[in-house]
Amino acid sequence: KMGTWKKLGVVGVPVSKGQRRDGTDKGPKFLRDGGLLERLKKIGCEVKDYGDVDFGYIDNDMPHEHVKNPRNIARGSLKTADQVERCLRTEGHCLAIGGDHSMAIGTIIGHARVHPDMAVLWIDAHADINTPLTSDSGNIHGMPLSFVAHELDPYVPHMPGWDEVQPCIGLDQIAWIGLRDVDPLERKIIDKFDMNAFSMHDIDLHGIKNILDMALKAVDPEGVRPIHVSFDVDALDPVHTPSTGTPVSGGLSVREMCYIAEELALTGRLAMIDVAEVNPALGDSKDVDVTVRTTIDVIARFYGQRRQGIAPTGTDIPQATIRRNSLINAL
Amino acid sequence: KMGTWKKLGVVGVPVSKGQRRDGTDKGPKFLRDGGLLERLKKIGCEVKDYGDVDFGYIDNDMPHEHVKNPRNIARGSLKTADQVERCLRTEGHCLAIGGDHSMAIGTIIGHARVHPDMAVLWIDAHADINTPLTSDSGNIHGMPLSFVAHELDPYVPHMPGWDEVQPCIGLDQIAWIGLRDVDPLERKIIDKFDMNAFSMHDIDLHGIKNILDMALKAVDPEGVRPIHVSFDVDALDPVHTPSTGTPVSGGLSVREMCYIAEELALTGRLAMIDVAEVNPALGDSKDVDVTVRTTIDVIARFYGQRRQGIAPTGTDIPQATIRRNSLINAL
Amino acid sequence: KMGTWKKLGVVGVPVSKGQRRDGTDKGPKFLRDGGLLERLKKIGCEVKDYGDVDFGYIDNDMPHEHVKNPRNIARGSLKTADQVERCLRTEGHCLAIGGDHSMAIGTIIGHARVHPDMAVLWIDAHADINTPLTSDSGNIHGMPLSFVAHELDPYVPHMPGWDEVQPCIGLDQIAWIGLRDVDPLERKIIDKFDMNAFSMHDIDLHGIKNILDMALKAVDPEGVRPIHVSFDVDALDPVHTPSTGTPVSGGLSVREMCYIAEELALTGRLAMIDVAEVNPALGDSKDVDVTVRTTIDVIARFYGQRRQGIAPTGTDIPQATIRRNSLINAL
Ligand SMILES: [Mn+2]
Ligand SMILES: [Mn+2]
Ligand SMILES: [Mn+2]
Ligand SMILES: [Mn+2]
Ligand SMILES: [Mn+2]
Ligand SMILES: [Mn+2]
Repeated sequence: KMGTWKKLGVVGVPVSKGQRRDGTDKGPKFLRDGGLLERLKKIGCEVKDYGDVDFGYIDNDMPHEHVKNPRNIARGSLKTADQVERCLRTEGHCLAIGGDHSMAIGTIIGHARVHPDMAVLWIDAHADINTPLTSDSGNIHGMPLSFVAHELDPYVPHMPGWDEVQPCIGLDQIAWIGLRDVDPLERKIIDKFDMNAFSMHDIDLHGIKNILDMALKAVDPEGVRPIHVSFDVDALDPVHTPSTGTPVSGGLSVREMCYIAEELALTGRLAMIDVAEVNPALGDSKDVDVTVRTTIDVIARFYGQRRQGIAPTGTDIPQATIRRNSLINAL
Repeated sequence: KMGTWKKLGVVGVPVSKGQRRDGTDKGPKFLRDGGLLERLKKIGCEVKDYGDVDFGYIDNDMPHEHVKNPRNIARGSLKTADQVERCLRTEGHCLAIGGDHSMAIGTIIGHARVHPDMAVLWIDAHADINTPLTSDSGNIHGMPLSFVAHELDPYVPHMPGWDEVQPCIGLDQIAWIGLRDVDPLERKIIDKFDMNAFSMHDIDLHGIKNILDMALKAVDPEGVRPIHVSFDVDALDPVHTPSTGTPVSGGLSVREMCYIAEELALTGRLAMIDVAEVNPALGDSKDVDVTVRTTIDVIARFYGQRRQGIAPTGTDIPQATIRRNSLINAL
Repeated sequence: KMGTWKKLGVVGVPVSKGQRRDGTDKGPKFLRDGGLLERLKKIGCEVKDYGDVDFGYIDNDMPHEHVKNPRNIARGSLKTADQVERCLRTEGHCLAIGGDHSMAIGTIIGHARVHPDMAVLWIDAHADINTPLTSDSGNIHGMPLSFVAHELDPYVPHMPGWDEVQPCIGLDQIAWIGLRDVDPLERKIIDKFDMNAFSMHDIDLHGIKNILDMALKAVDPEGVRPIHVSFDVDALDPVHTPSTGTPVSGGLSVREMCYIAEELALTGRLAMIDVAEVNPALGDSKDVDVTVRTTIDVIARFYGQRRQGIAPTGTDIPQATIRRNSLINAL
């Protein structure tokens, strides 16, 4: 039923109107130019590039109350969902490269059409579960989870263009890892619905191994579900991914993120990966470079690269024809 | 008997003559300008600003033997003690922002007048327990603990102006966290009096959770004492707080420091916090900026901010009046 | 039989032709100019400087197949072995400062003449166990372990000048710590010979204490062997040692490396330390400075410096002749 992550399709989701800064629309281009696809091929993946979702922005997309760009995000999300669904049905696995984190509205809806029982690991400094009514900023990249969860339907108001954006998963299918900047009413939602929220405090307390175990156990107790990873690069410490719009100090180390990715790859159940919030318009060129390199390095771990190395199958260590001491021996 | 840390007074201690570099006298100003008080108010604290202690330096403060600025430091320490005592009696909790770490002579003396049974957590790369006779540098910021501890009285020589600076706590009321640059005779003191010194080696070995537990158990075995945190920002790794006079590599991460602060806040027994050794005259503007931001971020954790977020009391998640699918429903 | 690491000889190994970049030949000079020997003396070591091995490069050292500089590396390795042997027999302990990691061919051969039963801890991002036939680059600094291990003799081809470079240790005498960039055929070697390879993933999973315990148990189960540490500074995270030729993100922290060094010093069985891959020609002056300072700081831990401090023997805390409150007492 599930594909192997060694065969995958890549979908670019160049959305930037889920937040206020230009630049995340260039995320897919920088990741591709940084050698993402070549890297995946080099480690043995069969990669098909589905190109970018055409966001083709509508003009005159006035805010609804204080929610910005509602029509464009709704329209782009539905296009993204279609593309993701097509990719998943054809390749068995989809890697969506964004794009701000509003991209996940579309990827989760698309994924849910194929695997409604998916487990979502949301790796992020932020909870991204504000509703249009609890958000201070009105930026939709801080709200994606509120739009896809059944239980939050009563809290999500009507907005122009959003009729077809319908909830598709339960809150018990979601676990967060890496939280360190959670709004008061987001915390209220977490508490009210007894959600699985693992903050940096929890990681400091229990270590990344135990937290990953707990998160997986929470959303996939029997170890059978397709896994959707929604990876916001601001989950990492800003030292590693400085070119992102809402950095928060005290984040995951590259090592912890590699650990997560390597372990999830071993499950064999990764069905979809989102990569969100790479913003090459922020920081200097050194910042952009380290952000892109780190992000690609982490992605490669989701697809099987391991720090201990991987022996080739069917190739042995070549023996020497003329041995080192043959001349000594010949004396 | 103890106040709540949600009501607090802030006392600036702009001392810089406890060490050789100008700049720590500007620490209180940079922390205030960086938004410290606003941040505390935002997370629900009732803050009263007591302004800065007037150090009004005396001229002709010749070194005593090799100890520098003895009269000024003694005089400022006693003024600081008075201000801290007044603040503690009025507000129940005092946050003292320095200033080099000689500031703690005054804060501990002032605090001991109110809570002689306090437990002191000294979070620092350095032990700061040299006596005037063991110190190589003659800088008083490396000696504060020697002046306040009863057991060290026989080792502290007479110095002009210091008659009223009298010991007020026992060595068993002190625990260090974060040590990594300890002078030989400081180690001698630690060993002779079997003091509670937790170095970075201990943290690497046992993890920050266990070390904090051990430190608290050592100085406050029954969990009843008022806690005095003396936080030298050089306890943190220089990556996080570069603008400080005596940085030492291999320090606490922001995450470990946040962990400490969040856990201590949960005790409900924080009575006083010192923040020492922010020196905005060191490093470039980026260094100063990250030092001030990180310091304020850590301070906020001592006053209840948590990485997992805090739900508001008495506010519920707002429901949508017009639901998302109402128009569909209406068809 | 073993010397004490408090008496040691320092041998410079200014080799750079084991890889493609100039600069590692200046490693010994930068470590000496950075104050390495003074630092060791200050912490109580009796240090004798044996100067640098004379590499005196041969011209016309054409590649053998794709292996670069074969004659020069072979010749320099044998000279290094002689110098190391002499140093070990005279001082009981040798600190070899390089130089690229091809230096370890000579240090291990020289060391094995004195202590054939040594245990080797190879602390490195890379496994450095390619053979001339498995290496992609042809750079010998990625092959040193293949030349010194008995079991790999059938895989090492004849090369001009290498007749006297003979294997001297078994693969079970080697353990790696810090791996995160292992070539497929290196992994094949590790698997085929069931070698002791501890990667960053293992450290993330078990913590540095347990990994060091496991590594020591693997190569020295009874705790009796002389220990040879081959420390490639690229084992550390590039944040700490940026001036190195093949940096890999997600490395050891300075704290973990200090932990390793402090614990190994406590064994009392350190017989030889290599320090490889400091390249002062890479990065800007700030990078070079932090690389040299960090490297020296780590080296000092191998020779007994500890973050908790070390009390002097035979010196007590000086008492005050005139006590602080003598004037009050006199009233
Ligand atoms: Mn996000
Ligand atoms: Mn985020
Ligand atoms: Mn201090
Ligand atoms: Mn300090
Ligand atoms: Mn190496
Ligand atoms: Mn290496």
